[in-house]
Order: sequence, then structure tokens, then C-alpha cells
Amino acid sequence: MIAAFGRRYIFSASHRLDAPALDADQNRAAYGKCNNAHGHGHNYFLQVMVAGPVNEETGMVVDMAALDETVRRLVLDRFDQANLNFDPLFADCVPTTENLCREIFSLLQNALPAGVLDQLRVEETENNFFECLREVD
Amino acid sequence: MIAAFGRRYIFSASHRLDAPALDADQNRAAYGKCNNAHGHGHNYFLQVMVAGPVNEETGMVVDMAALDETVRRLVLDRFDQANLNFDPLFADCVPTTENLCREIFSLLQNALPAGVLDQLRVEETENNFFECLREVD
Amino acid sequence: MIAAFGRRYIFSASHRLDAPALDADQNRAAYGKCNNAHGHGHNYFLQVMVAGPVNEETGMVVDMAALDETVRRLVLDRFDQANLNFDPLFADCVPTTENLCREIFSLLQNALPAGVLDQLRVEETENNFFECLREVD
Amino acid sequence: MIAAFGRRYIFSASHRLDAPALDADQNRAAYGKCNNAHGHGHNYFLQVMVAGPVNEETGMVVDMAALDETVRRLVLDRFDQANLNFDPLFADCVPTTENLCREIFSLLQNALPAGVLDQLRVEETENNFFECLREVD
Amino acid sequence: MIAAFGRRYIFSASHRLDAPALDADQNRAAYGKCNNAHGHGHNYFLQVMVAGPVNEETGMVVDMAALDETVRRLVLDRFDQANLNFDPLFADCVPTTENLCREIFSLLQNALPAGVLDQLRVEETENNFFECLREVD
Amino acid sequence: MIAAFGRRYIFSASHRLDAPALDADQNRAAYGKCNNAHGHGHNYFLQVMVAGPVNEETGMVVDMAALDETVRRLVLDRFDQANLNFDPLFADCVPTTENLCREIFSLLQNALPAGVLDQLRVEETENNFFECLREVD
Repeated sequence: MIAAFGRRYIFSASHRLDAPALDADQNRAAYGKCNNAHGHGHNYFLQVMVAGPVNEETGMVVDMAALDETVRRLVLDRFDQANLNFDPLFADCVPTTENLCREIFSLLQNALPAGVLDQLRVEETENNFFECLREVD
Repeated sequence: MIAAFGRRYIFSASHRLDAPALDADQNRAAYGKCNNAHGHGHNYFLQVMVAGPVNEETGMVVDMAALDETVRRLVLDRFDQANLNFDPLFADCVPTTENLCREIFSLLQNALPAGVLDQLRVEETENNFFECLREVD
Repeated sequence: MIAAFGRRYIFSASHRLDAPALDADQNRAAYGKCNNAHGHGHNYFLQVMVAGPVNEETGMVVDMAALDETVRRLVLDRFDQANLNFDPLFADCVPTTENLCREIFSLLQNALPAGVLDQLRVEETENNFFECLREVD
Repeated sequence: MIAAFGRRYIFSASHRLDAPALDADQNRAAYGKCNNAHGHGHNYFLQVMVAGPVNEETGMVVDMAALDETVRRLVLDRFDQANLNFDPLFADCVPTTENLCREIFSLLQNALPAGVLDQLRVEETENNFFECLREVD
Repeated sequence: MIAAFGRRYIFSASHRLDAPALDADQNRAAYGKCNNAHGHGHNYFLQVMVAGPVNEETGMVVDMAALDETVRRLVLDRFDQANLNFDPLFADCVPTTENLCREIFSLLQNALPAGVLDQLRVEETENNFFECLREVD
Repeated sequence: MIAAFGRRYIFSASHRLDAPALDADQNRAAYGKCNNAHGHGHNYFLQVMVAGPVNEETGMVVDMAALDETVRRLVLDRFDQANLNFDPLFADCVPTTENLCREIFSLLQNALPAGVLDQLRVEETENNFFECLREVD
């Protein structure tokens, strides 16, 4: 039996999709209204799944308070109520949900014990979401 | 028996809360992180309730396709994927959800038959919403 | 302080919207794809609100098991997994959600103690719903 | 136009329904499995609606941070992760959702400016909820 | 890191479960009320997951507008507001959600670039769903 | 194409987290408010996924009525409206959601045909959940 624990967080941010490698017409074609000049925003749901054995003494996979603190410090404090285009991570990279998910995956993977982060999901709206999975060796 | 029909829509927009009548410290105190310089955004749910008798021939309170068309033209085309601070309606008025709800209420009340618009709700997040109700004479 | 208790139920049914008072073109104009020849269906959520004083001994507004039994007998057993067009209630009346809500309101109002049924809501999809409210004298 | 602001909170608590005025058989008949000896629990959603004019300077009906602080201090700190039967409020009163809603209504009405608290809803499960409305003079 | 993008759609349809290989009693035993003569219906949620590398220029896994257009043309235009039993796909095959999910999987797999369609989910109600996963070689 | 069917159930229970292997301070540190003396409770959602071929005659992966009956008998009748700490399964094992999920996985795996139970999820709140997956040989 393989076990995993999932936890959901929310943050609100704005972004504008405009790729430096594309010209104005190509950007409009690629992103539609998401290319609008002044940006727009979303309530993003973040779902973090960590896998691993259940600690036999505490009956828990992970110290949830410690996980919350890591996510708060590295993700929520940084992106909640922020404009993603002004974050250094997106200086040379379009702040699509795909890229946002990959960047958060890296931030958390570096901060959590090796092999623990199993899956990350960022939901842009209730009908759109993006997932990153840990590659299994 | 009184009858009402409700319909929900969604749009994504960004805003920054910064009142011209307040100085920087007061703005920070009033709005917290919502006063951040570059703005942030939300997926807004809009719930429109219209009241009135059921048409005995069609069995409907309202022509839903016509209602959708009115909301699309006056609200969704204007605010979806937009930055509210750049809309003329918010030139002199902070784009809080309260003010957004009041402005949409006025836009729709003027476009729909008199007395039909009964209640409007704008949900900023799943935990925050604002409602305007028609005043009964 | 005025008090009310609400309870939600679900049932799945199909219907076709086609008004006998309208000709084929008018029906197509009024109902669009809901006029399709073979019908279609929904998961309907039914929300029943009953109002009244809290019983000081039991701390309850209503005997929930008795309410459930009434709703099951009069509504769920009749409409769940059914085609509304074949129900005698809709022999001369189009089975729109408006009419369905009105018929269920009457069925429950007649079965519950006088003055108890306060509001009924039928949700056809998560974006469409209809409400009937008790008229206050 | 009448305006109202709503905000949702969550807390987890346990309770056992057993009325002192009833004997064992009557309690079993009134509450069913909710009368089980060792209690059970719920995630309660609390929805607070406050009504009033929109402040023309800030564009807000209420200072949300202050409302959050009041609810946290009077309700969440008291009932979250608690067993309701051990709370003094329920020493002589069965901790049904109806009574819980009435008690929270009183706690908040006394702490908020007069006339502001418009409606309180406590949701015991997604299919069961209870509401208290302010009586209008 | 493996990446996937998910998108949700909705359509409303009716069906009746009655297998030609079974007699009347067996059909009643297999499907219960879903075997009722006149059919019933659901709001179906369709979740499409596509996997693949993030395009470094656009920051996207897939052209969402093109995906929407494919799903609209092959699935929504065909099944929304329809009676599944009258669709040629279900001429010799019972329109259970399992079979519906398999047929939609095939329709989309043939239309999308090879290897892109990773998972398909059809939700019949909020408590029932069916998934097809791409077989990995 | 690999296929799976998912079904969701709900039950309400209470628990107190207090590990016999830890002293009072360690328990407080490990569980926070979940260590409160009188316990608290939740509405638990249980999601059962079963995998396997679609029966070509009935078009179904599993007999849903039989699955419901198994889950009702082994899980819902036992844990709904119960205090988990008083269940023999948790006599020597803390009733965390992790352990609850593992115990339900074992109960169902023993009762269902071999290899059918694919994944089990228990959701403690909308933001916390735990999953057990069948190990693939």
C-alpha cells in the first residue's frame, strides 16, 4: 500500500500573458484576451501532495504545521495579492499557470525532504488546472 | 407564491485597492495586501436573480438567452480579463467588490425591464461575497 | 430572531421542452436545444427551507426524519430516474424547472403543517436555479 | 438599493444530542444515531452576513479584518476543535445546529455595532443548514 | 518532472440503461431504476487531461482554444441536450457512463496529436465518476 | 486503455488525537488543538476507486449496488455518527485520517474481489485528504 497526503491552499494574483519571443499579433493569437494590456487575475488553488510512509508513532505522513509553514513562507507570502509579472521568476518567462506550477514545484522540492513532494496542482479556475508529477527513477 | 430565477456567470479580473481620499498609511490600514502596488486578481462569480410571474405559455420567468446576451454584452465583455482600475467606472471610485456589485446592478437594472432585477451577488472568493437587493417600495 | 432550517436532496430526471400552445418554430425559438426531439436530462438539486420556532425541548425546528420521509415519498420516489414529460402533472404544462419547482412547492405545502414551508429551490445545473417563496400575508 | 456583505468561516467540532427533558427512548426517537453515547463530529461552515451602507471613501460595507478578528475571538477560538457538550452555553441546552446558530448569533450581535448583523447561517453538512435572521422592527 | 494540463466541460443528456443481451428481469436487476421505460438524465462533467512538455516560448502545454474547439465539435455539439440512446455509437452498446467515457476517449484520441490524451473522466453525479487512462507501453 | 470507476460516500465522526507512545507535551506538539481533551469531529468524504475491465454485456465495471452495500455494511454503519477512539481498530493506534484511511483500505480490500480496489481517499476537510493506492506487483 502506497500512501500520500494532500493539502490545499489558495492565493489571489494577477498576470498578463505576453511572450517576449513573440510579436504583438502572435501574442494575441497565442493568449487571446489573456494578452490584454493591463492584465487580469485569478484565485489560484494550490494542491500539494506528499508521499511516504505513515509514522507509526504519530500516525501521520508529514508534520502538517511544518508543511503549512513552508508553503506559507515560500509561496503564499510571495504570490498572494501579487502581480506575477513583477516577480523575478517571471522576468524572462511568461507567467502561465504551467510555468507558475513548475516554479512552485521547484521552490517546494528544494525545501522539503528529498523524494517527499509527489504532485503539485495549480487550479487557475474551476475548469482549468495544471499538474506536475515527480519523475520516478 | 413568489417566484425568482437565478443564473451564475464567471469572469476574471484584476484590481488594486487605493482610495484617493486616503493617504498611503491609511490605504495600507484600510486594504492591507490589497493595496499592493501592482494589483492582484480574482475569478469573480456573478449571480443574477430576476423575479416575476411564470409565463403560462412557455413556463419560464425570463428568456434566458436574452438575459445571457445582456449580461455578456454589458458585463462579461467589459470586465472579463480586464484590470478594473482602468475602467472609466472606477476613475473616481475604488474597485472594491462592493462598488463593482453596485455598478453592475445599475448597468443591468437600466437594461432589463423595470422591476425585474431582484438581487445581484458578486463573489470575490469562495469565502467573500457582496449582495445588492432591489428596494421594495 | 427568525429561524429557518434548510435541507438538500438530489434526483436525476429527463425532460423535453415543447409547449403545446406554440408551433414548431416558436418552440425552437423559445427553448433552443432543450426542444430537441428525444429530450435530455439533469441532476436536480432540491433545497427545502422550513421556518418556525426552535422546539425548546429538542432544540430542533423540524423533525428531520419526518421531513425526509415526506420529501422521499412525494418527490424523490416520483421524479428520481424518471422522464418528467410522462408525469400526469406535466400533461398540459411544459416541464421547465420553473413549473417543476411550483409543482413540488404545492405537493410539499399540502403535506407539511400550514405555514412551515418557507422557500423551495430547484437547481437544474450549477449555473441555473429557480426559487418559490411563500407569500407573506 | 440595499447592500450586504457575506463572509464564510469553518470550524470542526463534536457533539452528542441528548436532551435532559427526554428519557432514553425519547432521545433515541428524537435524534437517532446522533444520540450515540460517545458523540460524533462535523466540519461546520459559518456564514455571517452584515448589512449597511457602503462607506463612500473606502468602498467597503465593513472593515473585514475587524470582522474576522471578532469572529475568531468569539467563535472560532471557542468552538474549533472542541466538544460542544462541554461548553457552558450547552450546559442546559442540547447542542443542535439550531441552538448553536442561535448562540453564535447572540454572541456576534452583542459584539458588532447595533443593526449590522443581518443573517447567520451554520451548515452542519452540505445537505443541512440552519439560518437566523435579524427581526425587522 | 512530468506535466499535464486539465480542462473541464459540462453537457446535459438523457439515457436509459437496457442491455439487449439481457431479458427484462436481468435488466431490472442490473440497472435498477436506471432501467425505467422513459429514461432519465444527468449533467455530465467531462475532464480532459493532456500531458506533454511545456512549450518554452508560449509557456503552455497545449493550445487551449484548439482543444476547446475539438471538444466542442466532437463531444459537446453531439451529446449536449441529447438522448444518448439515439446516438449511433450506442446502437449496440448500453449508454452507461463507462461506455460513454470509452467512446469519448476514442473520439478525442483520434483527433488529438498521438500520445497527448492522458486521462479522461466523466462524472455522472457528484458521487459517481468513471476514468479512462492511456496505456503506457 | 485502463478503466476505473469512482464512488463517493460521506460519514460524520469524532476523534481525539493522543498517541500512547508520546507524553502530554509531545502530544500537544504533534497534534496541536486536535489533542484537546474532549475531542472534535468532521464530515469525512470517502472516495473508493475500483479498476478493471468493462463488462461487455452490462457496460459496467462493477455492480454499484453491491459495492454500496459492502461500503455501507463495513464502513458507514461502523463509523457514521461514531467516536473513532472507541472503535477497537483504534485501541492501540491513533485515529488520524492516515490510519483511518489505511484501516478502511484493509476492510474493503478483504471484502472485494482480489485486485479490484485501486485507490482509497479520505477527505477530512475540503483542504486535507489522504490517499492509499494499491501496490502494483
